[in-house]
Amino acid sequence: MNENMIKVGIPHGDINGISYEIILKTFEDVRIFESCIPIVYGSSKVLAYHRKVMDLQPVNTNSINHAADATANRLNIINCIDEEIKVELSKSTPEAGQSAVSALERAVNDLKEGVIDVLLTSPLNIHNVPSGNFSGHTHCLESQFGKEGEALTLLVRDDFRLALATGQVALSEVPGLLTVDLIANKLEAFHQSLVRDFMVTTPRIAVLSLNPGSGTDDWMGKEEKEIILPGMKEAEKKGVYCFGPYAADAFFSSGFYSRFDGVLAMYHDQALVPFRTISGEEGVRFTTGLPVVRTAPDQGVSYDIAGQNKASETAFRNALYLAVDVFKNRITDQKIHANPLKKQYFEKGSDNEKLDLTKDED
Amino acid sequence: MNENMIKVGIPHGDINGISYEIILKTFEDVRIFESCIPIVYGSSKVLAYHRKVMDLQPVNTNSINHAADATANRLNIINCIDEEIKVELSKSTPEAGQSAVSALERAVNDLKEGVIDVLLTSPLNIHNVPSGNFSGHTHCLESQFGKEGEALTLLVRDDFRLALATGQVALSEVPGLLTVDLIANKLEAFHQSLVRDFMVTTPRIAVLSLNPGSGTDDWMGKEEKEIILPGMKEAEKKGVYCFGPYAADAFFSSGFYSRFDGVLAMYHDQALVPFRTISGEEGVRFTTGLPVVRTAPDQGVSYDIAGQNKASETAFRNALYLAVDVFKNRITDQKIHANPLKKQYFEKGSDNEKLDLTKDED
Repeated sequence: MNENMIKVGIPHGDINGISYEIILKTFEDVRIFESCIPIVYGSSKVLAYHRKVMDLQPVNTNSINHAADATANRLNIINCIDEEIKVELSKSTPEAGQSAVSALERAVNDLKEGVIDVLLTSPLNIHNVPSGNFSGHTHCLESQFGKEGEALTLLVRDDFRLALATGQVALSEVPGLLTVDLIANKLEAFHQSLVRDFMVTTPRIAVLSLNPGSGTDDWMGKEEKEIILPGMKEAEKKGVYCFGPYAADAFFSSGFYSRFDGVLAMYHDQALVPFRTISGEEGVRFTTGLPVVRTAPDQGVSYDIAGQNKASETAFRNALYLAVDVFKNRITDQKIHANPLKKQYFEKGSDNEKLDLTKDED
Repeated sequence: MNENMIKVGIPHGDINGISYEIILKTFEDVRIFESCIPIVYGSSKVLAYHRKVMDLQPVNTNSINHAADATANRLNIINCIDEEIKVELSKSTPEAGQSAVSALERAVNDLKEGVIDVLLTSPLNIHNVPSGNFSGHTHCLESQFGKEGEALTLLVRDDFRLALATGQVALSEVPGLLTVDLIANKLEAFHQSLVRDFMVTTPRIAVLSLNPGSGTDDWMGKEEKEIILPGMKEAEKKGVYCFGPYAADAFFSSGFYSRFDGVLAMYHDQALVPFRTISGEEGVRFTTGLPVVRTAPDQGVSYDIAGQNKASETAFRNALYLAVDVFKNRITDQKIHANPLKKQYFEKGSDNEKLDLTKDED
């Protein structure tokens, strides 16, 4: 087996939605096995059911008990949910919610143990998962691999990368959540991700304004002057190149966004509305800022078209490739910085400057 | 002169921006004179200057003193600003701001006296107009032709029509401005406009949610349940067909918006970001809810490209056609409802029902 093959853990999401359909459609094309070893956490029975209902192309599967047993050129499946679970297409059932969480937990555990390399999550329905057990993939990963607020959610479509300063909260809470530190931290994390995950040497980040216009009018809000700009200044001190804040309306319509390596949006809809309008159904969500890589298609469970062979697998495929690329880029980045040249100290102040290679670094 | 020719008053906007360029480019095409008599409030000298700088096509102009003297097949110009005014391309000058307001005031006055039929405003810069004198076209028209809050701003591109529940205010103020009455009133005004201005017999209006998601999760805000839905119910009692509230992100990306005659957005950027992303530079602003018609291109002064022959006149042309169409539609609507059939009262309860045409209406 090629050592470069990345093991991708895929918790199956909601069994009554489009998850299995987009998984099956993605792995119909065998070329995808050249770059990764996929491991689905779910049920081979449910997979077979979805394949049959929609008369999809057969996929070479391989039932295994442990991710370490996964083989190349196959869609490996770990059966980790109740064997007798019933698929009820387009319905939100507690069984589906429970099984989505079980599969995710198993995958996260394997990720923690290093048995899989990256996580690619399928759409699940936050309304049918057992309450208290799950509050979003980002929180789940933060609790396992970092600390609260450390993760940064990116929306990615080709070279269009949008980061969210605040997440799924009521609009009225957004202004209160924005602080100088938050802006500075998100910008720094975004910068790090662009360098390490996307191999952009000197990334340029655009920042959107919270209020209409770009904060030049005090009667349309002061957050730009009091929070966003000072936050950008803080980030700049740490070597982040950021620009703005720009009024969101003109920013997207003029195509101006394409001149930047990344865009930081202030709230959920400010990012999601233009992102989805521009990217259609092909966008990817990527959780960065943590030591592990997680991507997901920017899709919901789509009960309205479940089991109808209407779902597009493009976003899922993009999410798979992104996870693999980011994982490889992080290794390359590590290698590049593993054995840096020592700093060179010159004895100055005399006529002939001398290079001192014996001096230790700070 | 054809009696059906609509007199369109065009205050010239900011002389240092793209206003004259888009006016000149629009009236290069003589076919446009078939449907309207344009009257520019500004300066024939400034117009000639812009034409010369960009080497634009000559346009047949006609300098007049009063709008009543306007003739067909010409671009009529009322010189109503300082003759010696200096054009400083791409610069924000107080002279430009003052002359923009003077021209607007003269045009509004003519509109009030009925000498012109509709108002088509060119881009001006709110930052160089004399302070206290002007706080936006909408406020200006409300103070002259209605009362505060009566006007409704629509963004229009072909059959895509977006209305704004709140305008140019800080994002933090938006949740506080939303009330059940506001939603109901805006929906009713929108409905009236769709019927009267756009000749949609039974308009279907979609309403966007304020918060991420569509208000099904209490932890993402309660405005949907407490304000938007009750407001929609109020409007429904008055015969408005409205649907939603819909989450804004999926609403636009899925093309779902095209199934409605109108969309009501909760705040400025929620409307402007998708509208401009979808409509590019061809959108129109339309102030409805007042007895007079005002349209404008959804463009700014664009100092960055002023005098460079780079501005597109498409939005301005669309705004001109929309103003003419709406004016005609309102007349047609009046005619239709001017002499309605009397209600017919039947004497019921007997074997032979009798039609009583003598009975008065309530």
